[in-house]
Amino acid sequence: MTSLVASQALKGRIQRASFLKKLCRPEDLLHHFPNGASIGWSGFTGVGYPKKTPTFLADHVEKNNLQGKLRYDLFVGASSGAETEDRWASLDMISRRSPHQVGKSIAKGINAGRINFFDKHLSMFPVDLVYGFYTKDRPNNKLDVVVVEASAIKEDGSIVPGASVGATPELIQVADKIIIEVNTAIPSFEGLHDITMTDLPPHRKPYLVMQVEDRIGSTSIPIDPEKVIGIIESDYQDQTSPNSPADEGSQSIANHLIEFFEHEVKHGRMPKSLLPLQSGIGNIANAVIGGLSESNFYNLKVWTEVIQDTFLDLFDSGRLDFATATSIRFSPDGFKRFYDNWEAYHDKLLLRAQQVSNSPEIIRRLGVIGMNTPVEVDIYAHANSTCVMGSRMLNGLGGSADFLRSAKYSIMHTPSTRPSKTDPIGVSCIVPMCTHVDQTEHDLDVVVTEAGLADVRGLSPRERARVIIDKCAHDEYRPILKDYFEKAEFECLKKGMGHEPHLLWNSFDMHKALDQEGSMRKIKKW
Amino acid sequence: MTSLVASQALKGRIQRASFLKKLCRPEDLLHHFPNGASIGWSGFTGVGYPKKTPTFLADHVEKNNLQGKLRYDLFVGASSGAETEDRWASLDMISRRSPHQVGKSIAKGINAGRINFFDKHLSMFPVDLVYGFYTKDRPNNKLDVVVVEASAIKEDGSIVPGASVGATPELIQVADKIIIEVNTAIPSFEGLHDITMTDLPPHRKPYLVMQVEDRIGSTSIPIDPEKVIGIIESDYQDQTSPNSPADEGSQSIANHLIEFFEHEVKHGRMPKSLLPLQSGIGNIANAVIGGLSESNFYNLKVWTEVIQDTFLDLFDSGRLDFATATSIRFSPDGFKRFYDNWEAYHDKLLLRAQQVSNSPEIIRRLGVIGMNTPVEVDIYAHANSTCVMGSRMLNGLGGSADFLRSAKYSIMHTPSTRPSKTDPIGVSCIVPMCTHVDQTEHDLDVVVTEAGLADVRGLSPRERARVIIDKCAHDEYRPILKDYFEKAEFECLKKGMGHEPHLLWNSFDMHKALDQEGSMRKIKKW
Repeated sequence: MTSLVASQALKGRIQRASFLKKLCRPEDLLHHFPNGASIGWSGFTGVGYPKKTPTFLADHVEKNNLQGKLRYDLFVGASSGAETEDRWASLDMISRRSPHQVGKSIAKGINAGRINFFDKHLSMFPVDLVYGFYTKDRPNNKLDVVVVEASAIKEDGSIVPGASVGATPELIQVADKIIIEVNTAIPSFEGLHDITMTDLPPHRKPYLVMQVEDRIGSTSIPIDPEKVIGIIESDYQDQTSPNSPADEGSQSIANHLIEFFEHEVKHGRMPKSLLPLQSGIGNIANAVIGGLSESNFYNLKVWTEVIQDTFLDLFDSGRLDFATATSIRFSPDGFKRFYDNWEAYHDKLLLRAQQVSNSPEIIRRLGVIGMNTPVEVDIYAHANSTCVMGSRMLNGLGGSADFLRSAKYSIMHTPSTRPSKTDPIGVSCIVPMCTHVDQTEHDLDVVVTEAGLADVRGLSPRERARVIIDKCAHDEYRPILKDYFEKAEFECLKKGMGHEPHLLWNSFDMHKALDQEGSMRKIKKW
Repeated sequence: MTSLVASQALKGRIQRASFLKKLCRPEDLLHHFPNGASIGWSGFTGVGYPKKTPTFLADHVEKNNLQGKLRYDLFVGASSGAETEDRWASLDMISRRSPHQVGKSIAKGINAGRINFFDKHLSMFPVDLVYGFYTKDRPNNKLDVVVVEASAIKEDGSIVPGASVGATPELIQVADKIIIEVNTAIPSFEGLHDITMTDLPPHRKPYLVMQVEDRIGSTSIPIDPEKVIGIIESDYQDQTSPNSPADEGSQSIANHLIEFFEHEVKHGRMPKSLLPLQSGIGNIANAVIGGLSESNFYNLKVWTEVIQDTFLDLFDSGRLDFATATSIRFSPDGFKRFYDNWEAYHDKLLLRAQQVSNSPEIIRRLGVIGMNTPVEVDIYAHANSTCVMGSRMLNGLGGSADFLRSAKYSIMHTPSTRPSKTDPIGVSCIVPMCTHVDQTEHDLDVVVTEAGLADVRGLSPRERARVIIDKCAHDEYRPILKDYFEKAEFECLKKGMGHEPHLLWNSFDMHKALDQEGSMRKIKKW
């Protein structure tokens, strides 16, 4: 290993002197990455991921035509940057991946059978990692190499992450060797994190979070310095994309939801300042948070997985008091705005491990309002969050089920239809039966589309079906769904099996019409 | 109301003098039960339920031919006694029921569409009740009358329950009026309970249980004495049935599981005394607990929903140190054994609210080993716990998903086949796709049948399918399932949608063969 001289910027970030001696270039570490190694990266939703090492390895494979010859098991808290994991996938460098991913090449690799992907609740993935469930067939029960990005290193060697915490604490706990990429292109995030590690049962302790802003941990991730095999300077920011703007449909959904919140407050089931909000990613989520910025709700708090640009607007509107998550995924403009106004924002934000941000324990205690977007919802309020047509993986489960199972208000928002290749409303997001179930009928309280809001609390399945079809289905699909339901109800009640009526052999006929004729509304009859 | 004279036995149980003045007969309370009233009962899995009032009301309906004219919304923590709720169902006295039930008449009423039933996670049902979700359309946002059984009443009016706690604390919290049935045919259970009530967010607190035996509450349920409209003496025991004995298949399942536990201990993933055990109801559960009584595991602890007879054997074998649950559902012989040896058992047992026994917070913290029996499991490790052929409700979800979602080890055990009407192995419990999903692929670690054990931790769906078919399917169904999987894999990979391959239009063809030809193995081809 050639010893390098640290830049001034890097020296300013590394307070542990012995680590400066470990400064190196990615190429010096190549021998730690043999074919078949199991690897962990920091990062969550495309921020805080390592950049230099993965890029070097990709260059190495490309330059030497090693496609398919250097393949790795890759574990990251959630998705990483496109220029790293998606490029790895395009070079056939990933043999196994969990628990979540974003990118065309990686999705293609998964659905072509080249990548063994499994998705897991984001709250549980790091715990299962520490349990040794994912390394049980590895020789030393460890991940071979874990590469983490830091915005600073403290004197005790502990790591100050950047814009995400994710599963980094647990990845470090199960790492055999650690590489730290210190990113001098972003500011030090010191003070913005609340770090907890994972104990094993029977020694686990409660998470003593009683309010969104409660701190229960330290400001950096402890590390065993002897495991650190290299320090690398990283020199560019997280490559995020701009946010998707709210469209008309999303605005309607946001309006329905805000009206629902007002109704709940009015009836004394929720405080005036609501309860901590969880909001997913995408244009509906942006519209909802945007809508709150213009609402009559003040002193709001956010307990969520990912903080996005619209939360800055909500802060600026004077309505948001505090937000906590496991990742800040701003657009490039959003990051600039955040860094430029650091003083205004930094003490209203806290980043935690994904096990904590998505903890059922805390979500239930705080009474979170959970809001997510599915692939499809069925008439009995099951939801598909992952697999199109039951088989094709999109991104993975993420934290949807962590929140929807344990939230006080479990809300699924979706447009009532999506376009197919040949029909602008060829896909109904309300279907007779989900082709894949990630959220069960026992987990949803509210389903909302631009057409309306179905409050299914305390309803039996047949009551649920009626209200979901009436309120949420698109005009074009309402009669089709009603027809299914009524026929199923008639047939099943007759046979004494009418609790949740289905025409089991025809339950996917709308999907069949989509597959074979290009649109779900081409269905002939049930 | 005619004032009654209390028996000596009753006086010995009621320490609050003013309550003796409220002593009455069920007939004195009839006017509190108008048609359409919303009613709560204590009780859980057929123990600790009120007996006199429900029986009087049933007699009243029967005698006066009021079938269908006195109908109630009925909320109980889980199932009640057959002579109460099942009789009510047979007299068409139930219009709505949640969250769980057992009995032929009630299942018939649900599946015939007469009873609007919804099942909900047993940990969450009481919370949603306190949130007001199930009474939101009632005039005063309360349950009209709650009838609870007590084994004693303290001086402050608080209630010492009998053999179950269930949802009684929360039912009392949302009751407009309360009737207490003091059962003098059972001993006072004072000291056996650890009672906690439910606060509303943002005022909820952690459950500070760090070990199975930790006490965090009081020994009785506080009550507002002004809400008590009547005290009734109850004079017979819980009507439980004998336990189902373990059969050969269950023994094999138990052996596979104990071998798996030994494997996990050997590899350092579990302590020698294992981790707290959760075990469901039925002959497989009995075989597993029976097997542990003869195993090399000592200092075991149990964190479960229901304690059954086999746990007494496990205590007597010297292997079980402590058990906690929300209900003790012994057989008549088991109760006798328990009462006769009260001194030996009573300080090794603790009964808690179902919200606590089934709390995801605690289950996750303690690292519980969760074991349950499904209707069917599919090749990708989804499970159906509730609806036969997707539509016919059995008993309800119960606590299965509370445990399987949050347990350290999430285990589904099932015979590989069940008999159909015409074929002793006409139903395969391993199917291509579950007709109803209560547990998702993200929630199961292990599937086990008498044929073998599939450890699916860290596996992608296609890997999972191979191991489940190989290890768990019955010999007769293995080639049929393999055929489905391979054809689905071929078709879906070809189309670039092979993450979780399905032949969507044929995924229920085994169920169709069962329905139309009497056996799943009559399927012709995929």
